[in-house]
Amino acid sequence: MSVQKPSLPKGTRDFGPVQMARRNYILNTIKETFSLFGFQQIETPAMENLSTLTGKYGDEGDQLLFKILNSGDFLKNVEPSDLEKGTSAMLPKVSEKGLRYDLTVPFARYVVMNRNDITFPFKRYQIQPVWRADRPQRGRYREFYQCDADVVGTDSLVCELEILLMIKRVFSKLGITDYSIKINNRKILTGLSEVIGEKGREGELCVAIDKLDKIGWEKVQEELNQRGFGERSIELLSPIITLKADNHKKLDFLKGFLSSSETGLKGLQEIQEVIQLLETFGETQDHVDFDVVLARGLTYYTGAIFEVKVHNVSIGSVSGGGRYDNLTGVFGLEGVSGVGFSFGVDRIYDVMEELGLFPEQHADQTKVLITYFDKSGFDYGLRILNRLRQAGIASELYPDEAKIKKQFTYADKKQIPYVLILGDNEIKEKNVSLKNLISGEQEVLSVEEMISRVC
Amino acid sequence: MSVQKPSLPKGTRDFGPVQMARRNYILNTIKETFSLFGFQQIETPAMENLSTLTGKYGDEGDQLLFKILNSGDFLKNVEPSDLEKGTSAMLPKVSEKGLRYDLTVPFARYVVMNRNDITFPFKRYQIQPVWRADRPQRGRYREFYQCDADVVGTDSLVCELEILLMIKRVFSKLGITDYSIKINNRKILTGLSEVIGEKGREGELCVAIDKLDKIGWEKVQEELNQRGFGERSIELLSPIITLKADNHKKLDFLKGFLSSSETGLKGLQEIQEVIQLLETFGETQDHVDFDVVLARGLTYYTGAIFEVKVHNVSIGSVSGGGRYDNLTGVFGLEGVSGVGFSFGVDRIYDVMEELGLFPEQHADQTKVLITYFDKSGFDYGLRILNRLRQAGIASELYPDEAKIKKQFTYADKKQIPYVLILGDNEIKEKNVSLKNLISGEQEVLSVEEMISRVC
Repeated sequence: MSVQKPSLPKGTRDFGPVQMARRNYILNTIKETFSLFGFQQIETPAMENLSTLTGKYGDEGDQLLFKILNSGDFLKNVEPSDLEKGTSAMLPKVSEKGLRYDLTVPFARYVVMNRNDITFPFKRYQIQPVWRADRPQRGRYREFYQCDADVVGTDSLVCELEILLMIKRVFSKLGITDYSIKINNRKILTGLSEVIGEKGREGELCVAIDKLDKIGWEKVQEELNQRGFGERSIELLSPIITLKADNHKKLDFLKGFLSSSETGLKGLQEIQEVIQLLETFGETQDHVDFDVVLARGLTYYTGAIFEVKVHNVSIGSVSGGGRYDNLTGVFGLEGVSGVGFSFGVDRIYDVMEELGLFPEQHADQTKVLITYFDKSGFDYGLRILNRLRQAGIASELYPDEAKIKKQFTYADKKQIPYVLILGDNEIKEKNVSLKNLISGEQEVLSVEEMISRVC
Repeated sequence: MSVQKPSLPKGTRDFGPVQMARRNYILNTIKETFSLFGFQQIETPAMENLSTLTGKYGDEGDQLLFKILNSGDFLKNVEPSDLEKGTSAMLPKVSEKGLRYDLTVPFARYVVMNRNDITFPFKRYQIQPVWRADRPQRGRYREFYQCDADVVGTDSLVCELEILLMIKRVFSKLGITDYSIKINNRKILTGLSEVIGEKGREGELCVAIDKLDKIGWEKVQEELNQRGFGERSIELLSPIITLKADNHKKLDFLKGFLSSSETGLKGLQEIQEVIQLLETFGETQDHVDFDVVLARGLTYYTGAIFEVKVHNVSIGSVSGGGRYDNLTGVFGLEGVSGVGFSFGVDRIYDVMEELGLFPEQHADQTKVLITYFDKSGFDYGLRILNRLRQAGIASELYPDEAKIKKQFTYADKKQIPYVLILGDNEIKEKNVSLKNLISGEQEVLSVEEMISRVC
């Protein structure tokens, strides 16, 4: 075998020990929250049949699916004429599986295939990588984790409440304090297009006002104009765009503004009820920001929509979700509605790094390294190692007889906070020298004292 | 879009909530043990360049790699003549990436690419799915998790000791009590082939005696005979095959038997030292079984080899590993030796199921369901939900006003052990009725009492 200089496929990443410890810190916080709220984890295979995936993400999405070459003789169904016809004739003959593109379509497939065994309302969460053949760029990868929670099989607004509560809990646990959970309702956007005299054009309206943050109201007006929205419509929309008030005042204002739209009022009522539930539950409205111009593209949302923005960081939008009517219709099961939410783990990672919020020490890190000078120190160290681990303290014995400096370097590089030094005196007196590498302090202790010190 | 009846690709599985809870129970036990021993987690991408994967698993392995079709115009480099030449000419033109086949090759690639940042000795663990285009059959899947721990960059036998300790800890935590950790040393097998007069044929010897468990000594003799091992060699081997004694007696016997083989004696000394380390550490030899005929195929092992067998179950072999000399040579980095071990998570799952060892309740399961009759019960329930979650108790409020029977069915199906019933009396008296669904017991309690009861 010839020697190769190995490399990674474009747009993919390794996660080393430090990154993994930090990712686990985020993911464990999220998982613990999901469990506390009664969500159950599922996993689906990386590969799905192309018939399951194709046509669910638009033409662009179909292009971005990673397809898997049939195993064995993948050319067995291929005719020379297929080659001339190009990739679209060739593809179905050489590939029948693809890598999952998101967690929603596999979840819909799962619900349909297991509908008789599932306990509805079904609260599920799923944390797995997805793959997209996107052009790689800063912050965009071809493999990345999604982290989704959905409740299907109920229209109860308690689900919307719980999404707000879960976000608040996760962010509070992670130490992220300066953020907003923007909430709106798709029906309000429908109502808006009705009352400005552009009924049925909420799709275009959403696409345009979705850009408000990026390009400003002036440019959005131009775009609406180009899309054929009338001067009068745009003028009517104006007070909504510039609306600044607390949630209750916004609700009051919109009750008047949307009074002629039944759908709009329904959306408003839903928002109001969610805010009311928050109060009944005993939680403040801190961070919860009713935002009439939050549009979140359009896609399949039919009720509440959510987006979380962290303030004063370079990439603020870290999570989003909403309520949908028909998750599983495409697989032949009608009437499964629900509401879902996705934590953007990579984004949250970046935010935490930018804000310096990761703890110095992680729970799953080694706490004590045992160092020694010779075979008798090694033997003594083995027995102490046993004691430490029995006390549940993550600990290591340096595996080789090596210069003490080398052993300390190991502790240092691995960010191990405590080092035990076992010399002749310690062995004779049956105690240990404990050095705290953070404070630099060193003291001689009995084994019991040392264990309670580092616990 | 037409309606489709969805299905899963052959050889792949969904994991539903119950399976996930059980898998997490196993994996968390393993992870916690790895951390306690100072192993650090890494993750590598699902996709690797085919140049990284190909040629590492033999011809059969290359066939079983899942290859990914190049994205975009995958035919752009294909000539009509390639089609005639068949799959081997076509493959490099339409695919440059594949799905990882195991965790060892990606780990070797990782070590080479990050050799300047890694702290050696490097104790890493990795738990990720791998993919193989094997013919699916009972217990064999095309996607399955591997769970590997390796230490590279040291020859210290402390690593072998720690593998034994980790296995013992994991199995003890999981409640598996009737099992053996078979340990042998590749050098002993080399020694055996030397002393029976078949020097250099330890490969064939291993392949044959590896089948001892399955086909018995008689058939193994036939195979050795067919392979051209002499009568006298087979006769000399005989006492080794039938050797039954405790570890120390086996060691004593082999010291004589292998006295003419330097390599054999070296292997013996290593085994002896590992057993000695176990004693120094203060751990018994229970479950540790020096097995001279353990061969574990051959592949790249050069020192200790391990295999764990659970007794009295249908598929007993659940884990294995060993020491190797040259992990990264194929990627141009020589001299990285180490020792590794892999827990067979699917197998351990099956064993635990067969032995009924999974706990009834899992830590991440909902503990309390709040049920109610009307809006005032719902509102009261929301406030109690807040209290429960603040106490860290995984709990849910049934999301819809529904018949109490339906709410209980939900608790039952989700195996929620406690149900709160909030009727008019409870609301008035500011207490709760708590029903234990396992014992059937029901009592009226204050909210504080209830919380301490279910904690």
